[in-house]
Amino acid sequence: MKAYFGRRYMLSASHRLHADRFTPEQNRQAYGKCNNPHGHGHNYVVEVLVSGPVDPEKGMVIDLADLDGIFAAQVMERFDHRSLNLDPAFAGQVPTTENLCQVVFGLLEDCLPAGRLESVRIEETENNFFESYRQ
Amino acid sequence: MKAYFGRRYMLSASHRLHADRFTPEQNRQAYGKCNNPHGHGHNYVVEVLVSGPVDPEKGMVIDLADLDGIFAAQVMERFDHRSLNLDPAFAGQVPTTENLCQVVFGLLEDCLPAGRLESVRIEETENNFFESYRQ
Amino acid sequence: MKAYFGRRYMLSASHRLHADRFTPEQNRQAYGKCNNPHGHGHNYVVEVLVSGPVDPEKGMVIDLADLDGIFAAQVMERFDHRSLNLDPAFAGQVPTTENLCQVVFGLLEDCLPAGRLESVRIEETENNFFESYRQ
Amino acid sequence: MKAYFGRRYMLSASHRLHADRFTPEQNRQAYGKCNNPHGHGHNYVVEVLVSGPVDPEKGMVIDLADLDGIFAAQVMERFDHRSLNLDPAFAGQVPTTENLCQVVFGLLEDCLPAGRLESVRIEETENNFFESYRQ
Amino acid sequence: MKAYFGRRYMLSASHRLHADRFTPEQNRQAYGKCNNPHGHGHNYVVEVLVSGPVDPEKGMVIDLADLDGIFAAQVMERFDHRSLNLDPAFAGQVPTTENLCQVVFGLLEDCLPAGRLESVRIEETENNFFESYRQ
Amino acid sequence: MKAYFGRRYMLSASHRLHADRFTPEQNRQAYGKCNNPHGHGHNYVVEVLVSGPVDPEKGMVIDLADLDGIFAAQVMERFDHRSLNLDPAFAGQVPTTENLCQVVFGLLEDCLPAGRLESVRIEETENNFFESYRQ
Repeated sequence: MKAYFGRRYMLSASHRLHADRFTPEQNRQAYGKCNNPHGHGHNYVVEVLVSGPVDPEKGMVIDLADLDGIFAAQVMERFDHRSLNLDPAFAGQVPTTENLCQVVFGLLEDCLPAGRLESVRIEETENNFFESYRQ
Repeated sequence: MKAYFGRRYMLSASHRLHADRFTPEQNRQAYGKCNNPHGHGHNYVVEVLVSGPVDPEKGMVIDLADLDGIFAAQVMERFDHRSLNLDPAFAGQVPTTENLCQVVFGLLEDCLPAGRLESVRIEETENNFFESYRQ
Repeated sequence: MKAYFGRRYMLSASHRLHADRFTPEQNRQAYGKCNNPHGHGHNYVVEVLVSGPVDPEKGMVIDLADLDGIFAAQVMERFDHRSLNLDPAFAGQVPTTENLCQVVFGLLEDCLPAGRLESVRIEETENNFFESYRQ
Repeated sequence: MKAYFGRRYMLSASHRLHADRFTPEQNRQAYGKCNNPHGHGHNYVVEVLVSGPVDPEKGMVIDLADLDGIFAAQVMERFDHRSLNLDPAFAGQVPTTENLCQVVFGLLEDCLPAGRLESVRIEETENNFFESYRQ
Repeated sequence: MKAYFGRRYMLSASHRLHADRFTPEQNRQAYGKCNNPHGHGHNYVVEVLVSGPVDPEKGMVIDLADLDGIFAAQVMERFDHRSLNLDPAFAGQVPTTENLCQVVFGLLEDCLPAGRLESVRIEETENNFFESYRQ
Repeated sequence: MKAYFGRRYMLSASHRLHADRFTPEQNRQAYGKCNNPHGHGHNYVVEVLVSGPVDPEKGMVIDLADLDGIFAAQVMERFDHRSLNLDPAFAGQVPTTENLCQVVFGLLEDCLPAGRLESVRIEETENNFFESYRQ
């Protein structure tokens, strides 16, 4: 058997989908109302999936408090109750939830033991979500 | 028996909690991270409750398509994928969800037959919500 | 303090919204795609709310097993995995969820001690619901 | 309009339904498998509803941080990750969720301004819940 | 990293599980109350999962409006508020949700770029679901 | 296409995280408040995923009634409304949800045709879950 531990977090942020290299018409076509000026926002539900052996002594895949600490320091501090467009991670790319998902994956992977982070899944609304999986 | 019909809508918007008459220190104390500059956002879940007799011919409290039309014109068009702070309704008051709830109640009440709108309930996140009830 | 006990059940049934006294055009206008021939269906989530004093010996508003028994006999047996249109309760009225709600309220009220049934709430989909309250 | 603010908390605890004055047979009949020795447990979802005018300056019914502080001190500290049966509040009564609901209502009411606490609602499982309302 | 986009839709339909080649006794044994004459119905929640590289310019796995258009034309138009048993896709097979899932997978795969559709998942009720994965 | 059937069950149990070989200090550090004496409890949501070909006659991956019977006999009877710590499966290991997940996987795998059980997923709370996958 292979074992996984999943943890669910929530953060609220605003974003505006807009590519500087696109014309206003192209932006409107690519992003629709998500291109409205001044932005809008979401409650992003972030699900982090970690794999690994179950420690035979502790009976755990990962220490929950450790993971919570990493997530708070790397993700919550940085993005919760913020405008994503102003974060350096989105200086050169549009803050779509696909891109946010990849950024969060990278931030967590750097702080977890190698090969343990399996995926990051972000629900933007209850009707759509994005996932980044380790290959 | 008294009969009710409830309908659930969702809209995404951004807001920043900030009162012009407060000092920066007072704003921070009143609103915490909701006072962060540049704002943040939510998926607001809006539940509209309408009461009334069940029409004996149609078997309905209210025509669903009519209510959807009113909500789209009065609320979705105006607030979905927008910044609440820039709406005239919040020119003189902070765009807390309490105030948004009262604004939405007023907009719908003006378009529905008198005495039919019972309440508007808005979930700001899955862990808090606000309700305005007709007295 | 006033005490309530709420219980949630689920049943699956089909219905077609169609009034015999209406013309095809009137039916289509009143019910839209819910008037499609051959019907469609829902998972109806039924929430039953019972009030009353908390029994000081047992610490309960109502015996859960009793309520489950009444609901199974009166509602599940009769409507679950059935076509609502063929039930005698809908011989003279359209099987809208408003009407289903009132029928279920009546069936339960007859089997519970007087004044205990507060309301029946039925979710037709995750985006709309109906409630019948005792006045 | 009347305004409400609702807040949702979660705590995990164990309980065993057992009345000392009942015979084993009576306990089994009253509580079924909830009477199993050694107890079982739940994730209790507690929803607190507060009413009041919307403060015209702050735009809020109640300060969220204040309510969270009261709830943490009065309820979480005392019941989360505990056995309800060992709490003094249940020395003379069975720790049913009806009784827990009334205990929590009393603890919060003592710490909130008079007349502001409207109700406490506790979901024991996703299929049943209990409410205590101020009369 | 591998990237996915998931989208959730809902449709309401009726079905009756009944195999022509089975005897009434065999049908009752295979399908239980799902074999009741006249059918019953569900709110089917359909989750579509699409994979692919994140477009570096747009920051998206797939254009959401395109996917919504395909789903509306291929699936909603055909099955929403209908009886599944009367659809040609179920002329030769029982309209179980397993089979519906495979039919929907096939319809979407034909309209999406090759290799992009990863899976279709259909919840029949909140307690059971079916998935078809590309191999 | 590869086909899956998923089924969701719920059970309530209590547990205390405590390793006999650890000192009190080590237990507190490893498990935090989950190490509180007398235990606490959860509503465990168990999702069972079964794979296999869709039977061309019945249109099903697995007979739902069969799976329900196996789950009731192997899992519900044994763990629902019990204290996990007293079960023989946890005589030599801590009853973390990781370990419970592996125990449930083993019990079900022994009763299902070889190679059909894909995974068992247990939600301990709405914010964390564990999965055991067949390799």
